[in-house]
Amino acid sequence: MKLLKDKILNQGKVVDKHILKVDSFLNHQLDIKFLNEIGKEFKEIFKDTHINKILTIEASGIAIACIAAQYFNVPVVFAKKTESKNLDKETYESEVYSFTKGKNYKIRVSKKYIEKNDNILVLDDFLANGRAVLGLKDIVEQAEANLVGVGIVIEKGFQEGGTVLRNMGINLKSLAIIDSMEENRVKFR
Amino acid sequence: MKLLKDKILNQGKVVDKHILKVDSFLNHQLDIKFLNEIGKEFKEIFKDTHINKILTIEASGIAIACIAAQYFNVPVVFAKKTESKNLDKETYESEVYSFTKGKNYKIRVSKKYIEKNDNILVLDDFLANGRAVLGLKDIVEQAEANLVGVGIVIEKGFQEGGTVLRNMGINLKSLAIIDSMEENRVKFR
Repeated sequence: MKLLKDKILNQGKVVDKHILKVDSFLNHQLDIKFLNEIGKEFKEIFKDTHINKILTIEASGIAIACIAAQYFNVPVVFAKKTESKNLDKETYESEVYSFTKGKNYKIRVSKKYIEKNDNILVLDDFLANGRAVLGLKDIVEQAEANLVGVGIVIEKGFQEGGTVLRNMGINLKSLAIIDSMEENRVKFR
Repeated sequence: MKLLKDKILNQGKVVDKHILKVDSFLNHQLDIKFLNEIGKEFKEIFKDTHINKILTIEASGIAIACIAAQYFNVPVVFAKKTESKNLDKETYESEVYSFTKGKNYKIRVSKKYIEKNDNILVLDDFLANGRAVLGLKDIVEQAEANLVGVGIVIEKGFQEGGTVLRNMGINLKSLAIIDSMEENRVKFR
């Protein structure tokens, strides 16, 4: 997606060869017009796929999922990372390993909001090691729903997530795939 | 807002006299069409106020802020509750007391994303004790920006937040104010 690549080149900041900051438009400040273009692009990519729910994970995935959902005309459900007294006791849970924090954390979705045979599109801002998507896939499977697609804004192609998910047969589409960020230069696939 | 009140009566669940669950449409599963009506309503309420940025707090505030921002044609910034290596070192910080958890937590916004003289509208899903809004107000003031309004979807009128904020002269507008939830019945103001 050219608009996204331009945005990454113009506004993204390569912190080191593993970390790209896009907090001016994607995950801290949110450029809503731009997110609408992202949403339209996901709809175009998945236009022939029957989808009745979008699943994401807090926090930055929520923005993308909500704006995109307007083009799919479906509700969004976001998996929670923290325990909350407002969350049902009946939840699907999965463990996700965080490479940043060096430990597992739990993600939870109330059993009420993913039903058997739901056709679920997972959306998220970044794909690196793929652990968050695998956790969401686990929850979709516990609910006996169908993971019909995964849409990612920025895939770090130099980490294993993309390969792992594609090798599992997951219908993964990334709007931009970065192959390397050596010497502060973003190289797209 | 009648649509919201009907939604609370039809889909909300009073857990006890302090806790209302609206996770089927507002803060776990997200009813995007309904959030668009919420967004339009906020725009109508604040149509004569000059606003150039919407500020909210992760996680559930993000959904409301993003959808509403489309009607204001402004970017969203969300305050982060967790430390992240992707967050700038230069941040505005504030301490927020959580009654649920019985302790303080920090909220942070990168200094890049709130500028002096910005006219900020704060949006959030719930107002109870008002501590999160006071934390956001503190951050807005550190940045020498202007807090021109606060829009809340559901105000728990039986808790102190609304009174505290209005007594400070804050331009607070809540789409629904609940005066009590005794005997499992929601009573609106």
